Amino acid sequence: MANTPPKTRVPKVLGILGGLGPMATVYFYELLTRHTKAACDQDHIDVIINSRATTPDRTAYILGESRENPFDIMAEDAARLVTFGADVLAIPCNTAHYFYDRLNETIPIPILNMVEETVRTAQRGGCRKLGVLATTGTVQTGTYQRMCAQYGLDCAVPDAAAQQCVMDVIYGGVKQGKRADRNAFETAVRSLRAQGCDRAVLGCTELSLVKRDEGLDAFYLDSMEVLAKSAILAFGKTPVGLEEL
Amino acid sequence: MANTPPKTRVPKVLGILGGLGPMATVYFYELLTRHTKAACDQDHIDVIINSRATTPDRTAYILGESRENPFDIMAEDAARLVTFGADVLAIPCNTAHYFYDRLNETIPIPILNMVEETVRTAQRGGCRKLGVLATTGTVQTGTYQRMCAQYGLDCAVPDAAAQQCVMDVIYGGVKQGKRADRNAFETAVRSLRAQGCDRAVLGCTELSLVKRDEGLDAFYLDSMEVLAKSAILAFGKTPVGLEEL
Repeated sequence: MANTPPKTRVPKVLGILGGLGPMATVYFYELLTRHTKAACDQDHIDVIINSRATTPDRTAYILGESRENPFDIMAEDAARLVTFGADVLAIPCNTAHYFYDRLNETIPIPILNMVEETVRTAQRGGCRKLGVLATTGTVQTGTYQRMCAQYGLDCAVPDAAAQQCVMDVIYGGVKQGKRADRNAFETAVRSLRAQGCDRAVLGCTELSLVKRDEGLDAFYLDSMEVLAKSAILAFGKTPVGLEEL
Repeated sequence: MANTPPKTRVPKVLGILGGLGPMATVYFYELLTRHTKAACDQDHIDVIINSRATTPDRTAYILGESRENPFDIMAEDAARLVTFGADVLAIPCNTAHYFYDRLNETIPIPILNMVEETVRTAQRGGCRKLGVLATTGTVQTGTYQRMCAQYGLDCAVPDAAAQQCVMDVIYGGVKQGKRADRNAFETAVRSLRAQGCDRAVLGCTELSLVKRDEGLDAFYLDSMEVLAKSAILAFGKTPVGLEEL
C-alpha cells in the first residue's frame, strides 16, 4: 500500500454564530468576503449567519450583573446552524469565547477558536508580552490570560481605570454606532505599554471596528482578522491581503 | 364591539437569501445594521443569512447561457430559512427577483419585493421616467419594466452597447473585488439620460457598491437602500439616515 496521508475533507458551509454584536458580525462577514481570493461569486465560501442580536448581553451575565443567560440561546442557535448544514463554526465575539468549551461539548462540529488563533499568531509574530484590550467580561474571566499561559506567552491587562476607558469605547461608542473616543482608547493603551507590552490584541470585535475606521498600526493585532484568515484557510481557500498575520 | 383595526403582528426574524453575490449581501446586512435606530445590540433585528455563494449564476441561466438552475437551490435555502425561524424574507439581488413569484408560491412567509419597493419609491419621489441599470438578465426579462408598467411609470433601459458597459462594471469589476470602471458606468448613464430619464435605479446590488464607494448623487436610486429601509420598517424599527428615500 502506498504511504499516502489520509485525505482531509474540506468543509462546505461555515456557520457564523453572530449578532454579538451585529456590526461586528457584519465586519467579520465582510473581512471573510474581501480577503478570499475569488474571480466570481462561486469562488466564495458558503456561509450561514445566525445574527441573533437579541442574545442577552454576554459581559453583563459573566460579571453577574444580569441573570439573563446568553449561553442557552447560543447553544440553541449553534445546534440550528448544524442542522442547517454548517460543518465548521465561527463566533466573531471574543467575550462569547468564555462559553467556548461548553459550547464545543454540545455540538458535533469544530468551532474555530478566535482566542487561541490570535495568541498563536502573536507568538508566531515574535511577541513577548501581549496586552489585552477587551471587555471587562473577557478580562475578568481570564480568557486571553489563560490562553497566553497555555502558549507560554506573557500577558497584561489594563489597570482598573484604563479598563473602564476600554468599556467606554465599546459600549459608549461603537455599539451605539458612534465614533470611538480616541482619548479613552489611548489611555487604555498607555496602561499596557507601561507594563511592557510589545503588542496589544484587539480582543473585542467592536475594537476591530476602531482599527477599520481609524487605521491602527501593527502594534495592534486584530482578533477578527485572525479569525477571518483562519476560516478562509479552513475552507481550503486562499487568503489575500492578510499576509502580515 | 369597538371598531379597532386588527393588530398586525411584528415579525421576529428576517431571513436573508444571500450570497447572490456575497459582497452585496455583506453590504445589505451592513445597511440594515447601520440604519436601524439602536442604543445597544439587542435593539437590532434578529437576522438569519443564508449566503450561498455557490448558487449558480442567475444571469447566465436566465439568458440561456447555462443550464445550471439557481432556482432549485434558492427554493431549498428559502425553505430552510423558514425552518430556522424566519418569518419575513429579503433577497438582496435584483436579478434573482426574476424568480420572485415562483419562490413566493413555495414558502408560507412574505418576501419583501425589492423591485416593487424601488419602483414605488421612485414614483413617490416624483420620478417621471426611470432608467434601469441592471444585469442583462434583469433587463432582458423585463423585471423593472413590468413593475414600472404596473405602477404607470415610464421606463427605459440602456442601448445594447451601453448595457455591455453595465455588465463590464458588474462582472469585470465589483464581483472580482476590483474598483468599478467609471467610464463604462458613465457611458451607460448617458444612454439613459439621452432617452429622457430623470432618475436611474441602481438595479443590481453590485452597482449599490459603486454608490457606496464613489458617492453617486440623488439621480441614482439605490434598490439596496430601499430594501434595507423596507426591512427595518417591516420589523417595527425606526430607520435612521435614509430619510431621502
